[in-house]
Amino acid sequence: MNTNLSLPHVLILGCGFGGLAVARKLASAPVRITMIDKSNHHLFQPLLYQVATAGLAAPAIAAPVRSLLADQRNATSLMADAVAVDAARRVVTLDDGSEVTYDYLVMATGTTHSYFGNDAWEPYAPGLKNLSDAFIIRKRILLAYEHAERELDPVKRVPWLTFAVIGAGPTGVELAGTLAEIGRHTLRHDFRRIDTRQVRVMLLEGNDRVLGTYPEELSQKAREQLERIGVELHTGSRVTHIDAQGLKYQTASGEQTLEARTVVWAAGVAASPLAKTLGLPAEKYDRAGRVLVEPDLSAPGHPEIFVIGDLAGIQSDGKPVPGLGASAKQMGWCAAANLKRRLAGEATRPFHYADYGTLSPIGRKAAVAQIGKFKLSGTIAWLLWLFAHIYFLIGFRNRLMVMIDWAAAYFSFTRPARIVAGGDERATEDSA
Amino acid sequence: MNTNLSLPHVLILGCGFGGLAVARKLASAPVRITMIDKSNHHLFQPLLYQVATAGLAAPAIAAPVRSLLADQRNATSLMADAVAVDAARRVVTLDDGSEVTYDYLVMATGTTHSYFGNDAWEPYAPGLKNLSDAFIIRKRILLAYEHAERELDPVKRVPWLTFAVIGAGPTGVELAGTLAEIGRHTLRHDFRRIDTRQVRVMLLEGNDRVLGTYPEELSQKAREQLERIGVELHTGSRVTHIDAQGLKYQTASGEQTLEARTVVWAAGVAASPLAKTLGLPAEKYDRAGRVLVEPDLSAPGHPEIFVIGDLAGIQSDGKPVPGLGASAKQMGWCAAANLKRRLAGEATRPFHYADYGTLSPIGRKAAVAQIGKFKLSGTIAWLLWLFAHIYFLIGFRNRLMVMIDWAAAYFSFTRPARIVAGGDERATEDSA
Repeated sequence: MNTNLSLPHVLILGCGFGGLAVARKLASAPVRITMIDKSNHHLFQPLLYQVATAGLAAPAIAAPVRSLLADQRNATSLMADAVAVDAARRVVTLDDGSEVTYDYLVMATGTTHSYFGNDAWEPYAPGLKNLSDAFIIRKRILLAYEHAERELDPVKRVPWLTFAVIGAGPTGVELAGTLAEIGRHTLRHDFRRIDTRQVRVMLLEGNDRVLGTYPEELSQKAREQLERIGVELHTGSRVTHIDAQGLKYQTASGEQTLEARTVVWAAGVAASPLAKTLGLPAEKYDRAGRVLVEPDLSAPGHPEIFVIGDLAGIQSDGKPVPGLGASAKQMGWCAAANLKRRLAGEATRPFHYADYGTLSPIGRKAAVAQIGKFKLSGTIAWLLWLFAHIYFLIGFRNRLMVMIDWAAAYFSFTRPARIVAGGDERATEDSA
Repeated sequence: MNTNLSLPHVLILGCGFGGLAVARKLASAPVRITMIDKSNHHLFQPLLYQVATAGLAAPAIAAPVRSLLADQRNATSLMADAVAVDAARRVVTLDDGSEVTYDYLVMATGTTHSYFGNDAWEPYAPGLKNLSDAFIIRKRILLAYEHAERELDPVKRVPWLTFAVIGAGPTGVELAGTLAEIGRHTLRHDFRRIDTRQVRVMLLEGNDRVLGTYPEELSQKAREQLERIGVELHTGSRVTHIDAQGLKYQTASGEQTLEARTVVWAAGVAASPLAKTLGLPAEKYDRAGRVLVEPDLSAPGHPEIFVIGDLAGIQSDGKPVPGLGASAKQMGWCAAANLKRRLAGEATRPFHYADYGTLSPIGRKAAVAQIGKFKLSGTIAWLLWLFAHIYFLIGFRNRLMVMIDWAAAYFSFTRPARIVAGGDERATEDSA
């Protein structure tokens, strides 16, 4: 397949921001590249919550991997799930048992949900990592309102109109904010029996503030904006149980019970289990299972393996590098550059994270942002977030589509993707 | 929910072109309307094949029922599956066992697939009626290419690159034409091992010509255009068996076997089983299970029940009314007018079908059309089809989205919705 089989083979696992950045930076390098991902598309993860909340159609934030690499003749891709790395033999095993050899390996498979040992909670509280997750959550949200409308007993209706989001990091905050707006604005005129403005959106957080990676001041701003939108924020509340009826959580004043038919998990992430298969000594992993990489992003003891993005634990300028699309992309560029240096017999260089800031949307005209020393919140932060995300979306078509939908949503509060494919059963989640 | 409970209750089953037309025409009538559909959206069915072939995102051709009725204060909707009509008690039973009473009933639940008694074929040859079907077919098409690329044995690769479409009516023709174009153009540069231009698309038809409802001359034009695009057309070929490996079909020269991993069923339709629950005498149904309605579209012996769209068997000017969106819409208007006449104590009027023509797309710049006495084919028919469909799409946003995607597709042959959510197993079809 690749033109010259004598060229070194670079195997990239994962086609997120990191993996794609490596492939692109190696476009003219004397290597053969194979990109392996279990899905057939690159996903613009920062907007995934918009698909989950029916604001955008899936194809607007996803681009087929094969299209992205179509013109890069030294690269090919394979839709497959990599299950193990054998670093000694330089071989990766795929889900169908076949093996792929490599000369250089780039591990960029990111994170998965972690239920902190309570995997039984997963069916009742799905997390949001990929498009399948987004469809499951979208379907549950839309059907909860349909159930409420069909329910004649006003008491039994309440749990259908109660939404709980667990974890007040960026994903939890944007989900909770959007859920409140859906009830208060989007669906306001759509139902006859229920008043959707009575929706309760609960955001539960174990720590004492929201958006814990932001400065205290912005956490406070985020809290104010969430409450203005109508989210009930409960910090210092640790979830102890989740089932089909709702959940229990522990606060300073004891255990509370919340009846909620729709629960979304945005609390914990863990490194992709592929990291562990590398078989490094235990002290080379952090608590979330990330690989504590060398300054040049290589795996300890394996100069031919680079670990990047959310899978890599690394500090830059004495601070941990945040798990953002921007940092994954920068690590991808650095790993590609170091890989080329290795090929040329040169010394590699350490990774430095250039912090251009972080932005978290909360709702319509509500966001917080930290750009260098500037702390912003409200409409200005939201506008910044809007334009930054349209700018970084891949593909002109997707940018145009998202802009149109957002313009429509801004002026009329519509959410065009309120479509449920398939039946009414909560068990079958084959949504659209 | 509805303002005045003393008003007559009109229950509409099905939110397709017919059901929606009834609801809208009754917007200012002194009635309470309840619309029941098992999905939460109105679907623009003529473009469903574009979702199945990754040309359009689902939200572009679907509109939430609740949005469509939000401003119509005399109407409400319920997402539920109607399973039986008890005409004597004037009650409809829903899937959860609950009952809804009515004063007037409009049945507009359309058709489902019919495998002519071979329901065992369904898992291997899905049909195309709703968005779930479209995602199943899209996923199978995209994964077939991925399987072919992973398959090292060129002989084993062939069945993955062989697509069979059964039935050469409008749906079969548009699917087969698009499938051939996907291999020849869209995916041409995306793979490294396989040459997607070698894809085989077989269109099997039991009768001796394609598009049997069109004049002979246009069938011949359609055949020529299909063959130019690269579809292998086999008329006079009746399918006798389908399984996971492919299918068998009977021709004049004996039984043939075709190994094909992707098979789509576009051959037979039957009336929604709800029609039978009316319990009319057997001679009041046609062979496909449609209700042979009175000239005013009421069910025989039930002036309070109207049956419209694909569920109604009726002649107009001595010819059967074709099963089109346009005819369903016209029946909806007529049924609504007759319902109002009943309310006013006036005599009902017979339905007349105004034939504005039919259009069938075949592929890029390929279509056939019959408008009155004019028979058109090729680019001009295709342009007509294009503008007619954008014009009739519901909602400005959807029109804009479809135009953008089609403009992009026209100039670059891209299909932006080439996204598979979820795993690689053909069993789980939870696609996007």
